[in-house]
Amino acid sequence: MKAAILGYGTVGSGVGEIIGSLCDKGIEVAHILERTENLHKHPLMCDDINVILNDEEVDVVVETMGGIEPAHTFIMAALNAKKHVVSANKAVIARYMEEFHACADANGVRFLYEASCGGGIPWLHNLYNALRIDEIDEIHGIFNGTTNYILDHMEKEQAQFDVILAKAQQLGYAESDPSADIDGIDIQNKLRISATIAFQGNVPLTFPVFGIRNINKTDIDYAASLHKKIKLPAIAKRVDDRYYAAVEPTLYEETQTEASISENFNLTCIHGATIGDLKFYGQGAGKLPTANAVVQDILDLHENIDTQPKNQNKALRVDTSLVCGTYIVRTDAPEALINELFTDFYVKKEVFKDNTYYWMEHISSYMMHQKVKELCNTDGNVFFAQIAEVNA
Amino acid sequence: MKAAILGYGTVGSGVGEIIGSLCDKGIEVAHILERTENLHKHPLMCDDINVILNDEEVDVVVETMGGIEPAHTFIMAALNAKKHVVSANKAVIARYMEEFHACADANGVRFLYEASCGGGIPWLHNLYNALRIDEIDEIHGIFNGTTNYILDHMEKEQAQFDVILAKAQQLGYAESDPSADIDGIDIQNKLRISATIAFQGNVPLTFPVFGIRNINKTDIDYAASLHKKIKLPAIAKRVDDRYYAAVEPTLYEETQTEASISENFNLTCIHGATIGDLKFYGQGAGKLPTANAVVQDILDLHENIDTQPKNQNKALRVDTSLVCGTYIVRTDAPEALINELFTDFYVKKEVFKDNTYYWMEHISSYMMHQKVKELCNTDGNVFFAQIAEVNA
Repeated sequence: MKAAILGYGTVGSGVGEIIGSLCDKGIEVAHILERTENLHKHPLMCDDINVILNDEEVDVVVETMGGIEPAHTFIMAALNAKKHVVSANKAVIARYMEEFHACADANGVRFLYEASCGGGIPWLHNLYNALRIDEIDEIHGIFNGTTNYILDHMEKEQAQFDVILAKAQQLGYAESDPSADIDGIDIQNKLRISATIAFQGNVPLTFPVFGIRNINKTDIDYAASLHKKIKLPAIAKRVDDRYYAAVEPTLYEETQTEASISENFNLTCIHGATIGDLKFYGQGAGKLPTANAVVQDILDLHENIDTQPKNQNKALRVDTSLVCGTYIVRTDAPEALINELFTDFYVKKEVFKDNTYYWMEHISSYMMHQKVKELCNTDGNVFFAQIAEVNA
Repeated sequence: MKAAILGYGTVGSGVGEIIGSLCDKGIEVAHILERTENLHKHPLMCDDINVILNDEEVDVVVETMGGIEPAHTFIMAALNAKKHVVSANKAVIARYMEEFHACADANGVRFLYEASCGGGIPWLHNLYNALRIDEIDEIHGIFNGTTNYILDHMEKEQAQFDVILAKAQQLGYAESDPSADIDGIDIQNKLRISATIAFQGNVPLTFPVFGIRNINKTDIDYAASLHKKIKLPAIAKRVDDRYYAAVEPTLYEETQTEASISENFNLTCIHGATIGDLKFYGQGAGKLPTANAVVQDILDLHENIDTQPKNQNKALRVDTSLVCGTYIVRTDAPEALINELFTDFYVKKEVFKDNTYYWMEHISSYMMHQKVKELCNTDGNVFFAQIAEVNA
């Protein structure tokens, strides 16, 4: 089997390395698409996608460029050239997955993207297998290593957000423009992809997202005073044809597995009727773990293993009542405004190290996001978080 | 595809239920082998294995009887009758896996046993997939729900071992003869199977095992005073052709993921060169989770998906230096005996609520098991545990 790799950055070069290390599997890299100025770096490099599209010996195109364009155009062109496509690019998949699958089906080839969600965790493979038997009614978890690293190290190093963000950038855990990570956009893309598979219907990118840009050291300390840790998980629940999805900071009890996830690790979780709870822990990013996931897809193509279910395109509708609970809001806004915005839900306030935390009960996640958006007009530094329920 | 189920107890009947719930998958149960006195319970029941062996329409025999005989004989007979076999029976697989695989190969059929290790966790499937790319140098984890439930509830309910064991028996989490669980035999079987696959060579049932029969409430409290939790994990490490495996109580830091595993859940972990750490959490036992794992194997057979690697039968030898560290021993034996047995390793003692804990450093797991065996002659209630290293 011959592969062409589009983009030879961290993940792409990791894929090249792992394929090179696989003895007697019969997989080889035939082309690497790179920018003109990089062509001297590797004898297989070219800067013209048509070289790859026109090479009949290329069976699979591996897209590790990232970004929306030209990734979208190249993926479509490769599928239309009847080549399988393996992608690690959550942003473009979140936007176009239905289009990619339809195009792959029309051309009798496959479109696989294990590496796009959960990095090195075999998350989508396990989701596919679970779906062979169970309907899945919940997925949740920590899908982003950058934000987990920041939250973990704000506590470990007793430092402010900016300090740890800068350190994460130095270590290569965060981009120079960190917005996609810290504002939850990366997690939103992964949840949209995972939930669309898990619920077997389109879960569009329209659900509420709140990141950790506004978190401060006192928020971490307040959580610790409650024996809790703050994480930035994704959650999606389904009941029949109704679903709700959101990305929002959440306080987990110190003894919960979610709270134990340190550094830049991820934890992705499903619940199904017969299997109960399954959770998967591993490297959510990084060169070799992500490349490992890409090569797992290539091996599936090579060994003709197909566990990916055909999406049943179930018609799903949003039900904002599916995720409700207890929330805290930290804000400098006047209490009168809190009273007005959160009537019926506001139960108490606590002042901790000069920060004021308002507790809301029996409020839906959806309403929390709406109200906090209004609050932002008065207090641009507002932070809020769900208090996770503790089972058993 | 037609299946025959041997034994219609908890797991077997769960398999029947799940197969019954799978619409349009083309799998059906053709026979159920049961004891003569149960035959009235289900129209498909028979009490003669030859009915199944001679039915040419039966493609797969599902062994959910448990125990060594007649399970061993029936599995061999089914393979020799050129029927695939799926088994959930760790005891018989741990004893005969090489024989079963050789027989399956000779007859051109497959022998699968996802449910035998980690219950509902897709553990072996993920091990197989990891092996497509990486060599695995470590597996460890919590492979037994009964002992995890007991350890967790001794702490939660502040109760002695016997009280919680009785409760676990009442709840159906522990057998009326609980030895296989509390003495670590069940874990030993699962580690032997998992390590033989992970290391691609025979890891026989000869490694040291120490269970939790001797644990007392004060041990739990002592661990808590150190901000640690006691678990009963399995561990196997490999370097080149050398390995070491053991089952022994271990104290994990409260913030480690292993410590967060509560109730009767399991956590199974691997480490590979490119994938790093992967951990899998789920129901380690129970009717539907275990049956789910059995049916996953049947679906693989039905869909002709084969990810199980051929065992390379690497020649492996024991290296007792691979697992070394810090251990505590709780005993009433005279300190002079401790001094004599653990010269060079004994570094301090602590008296906690009338129990005496001796700390040993830089001692191999193998030597600990040997020395504690000697100590048993003087103190039949001795308890010991490793202190897990905390990474990062």
